[in-house]
Amino acid sequence: MLNEYKKIDEKDIEYLKSVLEEDRVFVGKDISEDFSHDELGSVKKMPEVLVEVINADEVSKIVKYAYDNNIPVIPRGSGTGLVGASVPVHGGIMINLCRMNKILEIDEENLTLTVEPGVLLMEIAEFVEEHDLFYPPDPGEKSATIGGNINTNAGGMRAVKYGVTRDYVRGLEVVLPNGEIIELGGKVVKNSSGYSIKDLICGSEGTLGIVTKAILKLMPLPKKAISLLVPFPNLTKAIETVPKIVKSKTIPTSIEFMERDVILAAEEFLGKKFPDSAADAYLLLTFDGNSTEEIEKDYESAANIVLNEGALDIFIADTDERKEAIWSARGAFLEAIKASTTEMDECDVCVPRNKIAEFINYTYKLQDKFDIRIKNFGHAGDGNLHVYILKDEMTEDSWNKKLPEVFKCMYKKARELKGQVSGEHGIGYAKKKYLNEQIGEANLTLMRNIKLAFDSKNILNPGKVCY
Amino acid sequence: MLNEYKKIDEKDIEYLKSVLEEDRVFVGKDISEDFSHDELGSVKKMPEVLVEVINADEVSKIVKYAYDNNIPVIPRGSGTGLVGASVPVHGGIMINLCRMNKILEIDEENLTLTVEPGVLLMEIAEFVEEHDLFYPPDPGEKSATIGGNINTNAGGMRAVKYGVTRDYVRGLEVVLPNGEIIELGGKVVKNSSGYSIKDLICGSEGTLGIVTKAILKLMPLPKKAISLLVPFPNLTKAIETVPKIVKSKTIPTSIEFMERDVILAAEEFLGKKFPDSAADAYLLLTFDGNSTEEIEKDYESAANIVLNEGALDIFIADTDERKEAIWSARGAFLEAIKASTTEMDECDVCVPRNKIAEFINYTYKLQDKFDIRIKNFGHAGDGNLHVYILKDEMTEDSWNKKLPEVFKCMYKKARELKGQVSGEHGIGYAKKKYLNEQIGEANLTLMRNIKLAFDSKNILNPGKVCY
Repeated sequence: MLNEYKKIDEKDIEYLKSVLEEDRVFVGKDISEDFSHDELGSVKKMPEVLVEVINADEVSKIVKYAYDNNIPVIPRGSGTGLVGASVPVHGGIMINLCRMNKILEIDEENLTLTVEPGVLLMEIAEFVEEHDLFYPPDPGEKSATIGGNINTNAGGMRAVKYGVTRDYVRGLEVVLPNGEIIELGGKVVKNSSGYSIKDLICGSEGTLGIVTKAILKLMPLPKKAISLLVPFPNLTKAIETVPKIVKSKTIPTSIEFMERDVILAAEEFLGKKFPDSAADAYLLLTFDGNSTEEIEKDYESAANIVLNEGALDIFIADTDERKEAIWSARGAFLEAIKASTTEMDECDVCVPRNKIAEFINYTYKLQDKFDIRIKNFGHAGDGNLHVYILKDEMTEDSWNKKLPEVFKCMYKKARELKGQVSGEHGIGYAKKKYLNEQIGEANLTLMRNIKLAFDSKNILNPGKVCY
Repeated sequence: MLNEYKKIDEKDIEYLKSVLEEDRVFVGKDISEDFSHDELGSVKKMPEVLVEVINADEVSKIVKYAYDNNIPVIPRGSGTGLVGASVPVHGGIMINLCRMNKILEIDEENLTLTVEPGVLLMEIAEFVEEHDLFYPPDPGEKSATIGGNINTNAGGMRAVKYGVTRDYVRGLEVVLPNGEIIELGGKVVKNSSGYSIKDLICGSEGTLGIVTKAILKLMPLPKKAISLLVPFPNLTKAIETVPKIVKSKTIPTSIEFMERDVILAAEEFLGKKFPDSAADAYLLLTFDGNSTEEIEKDYESAANIVLNEGALDIFIADTDERKEAIWSARGAFLEAIKASTTEMDECDVCVPRNKIAEFINYTYKLQDKFDIRIKNFGHAGDGNLHVYILKDEMTEDSWNKKLPEVFKCMYKKARELKGQVSGEHGIGYAKKKYLNEQIGEANLTLMRNIKLAFDSKNILNPGKVCY
């Protein structure tokens, strides 16, 4: 949809300053360059004005004003996205939600946590653990905000056993594109009361509404967890084991896969040794439960399977120290790969679990075909791959030519395997083309109609997902 | 939305007979009266024509024809709904999906089951159990179709631990109101690829699209289950124990509550004895897991809590015989109450778990105030109550006057307690008024916009949910 948006002028700035305090409205060179991009980097544009909000009422007033005046509004959290979803590609007002960062309530009788959108994932983890409770979604980027996680429907490592962010959102307060504030769901466990707008907001990447409060479902904290680091002679052997583990009816909390050179990059990046780096490829299996006996049975069964399937060894991480060594490396993979090259882009496809090996082998072929470095790691247990395409010393021209070709091949392959464009990073700005190709005309038209049902003027985070 | 729909004529019947075989198109007195209503009974209207379909292509052709000719289309499964969602209140073509009842595939590597919409819940349970797998959603009505369950987002008994139907729908094939067939999701565990239309279809009561195939998530079958039947001196004492169990971080698979006279009604209805009926009220707690030791710890902890809170005794049901005696009674509650009166209607509110006692005590007050018999049973563990208002020997006039007043009070109370109009039965035709009052203008407008985004002519199951 082509829109003629109104450019920000002095009158708009005056209005924003009348709603907020003056020191929470930024223009021109007072806006840090950070706000022009997310972690993807290659999509850049400065907002015309940046505002910091502290409550839903402020958000509502600003959005209503923008709606009435046809000005784009872009909600932003920590900016840890990877698809340019929070880049103001059409300019306009960027709303920084990071100061709405209060944990509002923990309700132990209903097992819910009520938070503002700017609370960080790591803050939630720490807070609920103190109450012997557990918020299962566990994306790698712990400094992401919960608002961002809800908007991408992030999944993370534990999706194998526990599901994704949407499964843990019980209620939302949302500012609609016309400025109205609505409440969706609540502390209730079940809800069949009309269309589930809550579930639609989850994963909508800030294009349908701005989340100003969330009620999250908690669980009792599992008392024990154990990780098995399993070396394999090669990645294919490692990955092919995964559907066999699943079929055995042993469900680990997470199954991550990693290759030696990603591990070596992480070791270098962190200046810390990984427990083992002799093998070409590894699976990292985690099991959690309430007692050692409960998880022992599961991990023994998984251990038998991996050994039968050609694992070289099994390292058990049951001490905090050893777990820390493994998981800090796992947490640093993205940064380590990033540090190893000049520029990169990523592909976040999700394929059925028994198709992962086929997809990864295909990326090897692309690596050779295009003479480009490609690194994989990710969630073997749920089929969600994080594939990084690295520029290294390639010329700008060559990179700009090769990258879209590589992507095209990858997304085509994902489609063939009945996979999806994104498992958890979303579509944002960068993956729109691939979504369009994947889902077909009827589905795309429907998404666009849904966007207009919320936002007839297309002012909220325009240029993203389907428009 | 007021629509002038086209009435069915000979030409339409001819078209339908050209798409289907002649013996799958029914008109006039060849349509059984059953198709004019669901289990609610009080909302009745015959379809102008009834068709039996056997594949998505047939559904697509019929819906496209109806769309082009402005004829209402009403999808129907087993007709076990309780809110008139499948009643053709504007006439038109009723599509009976019951013959699309094939289990298409079980995929043990991805833990998915692919089914047509007319497969019954009890058929799924039996089929997956043979493969040592488990489909957790467990609504009371086992002869409901999976299509109906998806459309109401039914929850059932095990929602406390396992969540609701939506949580187990990985992918859908859907015929849109204009006849186009789209695929949503798939066998993937994670998906952040544009708006989650799949999650919106779940719970949309046949108003946004017709589900013609579903890919369901399965889990390993828990190897052990045990039920505790716990008598209490009164229902308030029983119910007030529930948030304490939840707070103790022991999560049972289900927590049901029941009163003596509902049990007596079920005993009479079934001609079978319940293990105990001396107490005024009972909680029925179930625990499942992979070993006796695993669940023992949980139920011992729950047993201590209930005894501390005034439970009179604890009956452990660990034999198949005893479990059968309890669960067959629980399964017969609805029918038993129905058989005990002349007519009834129900309220399916879901309130936060720590507000159930307050809500039930309020229904007692309404019973006295309106001199009307009200029976409760339901899912104490998830706050989803099934409250039955009984006509008994009341005159038609009196019933028609009292029933809306009682409902009005109940839904108002639910709103005060931050509950929702429906936990799992949906809104359909009968609860539209209460949904409107509950959710407010902005939310209702949004739902209507979403309906139009799918169905600009409002031909698919019109007169339901929000229109």
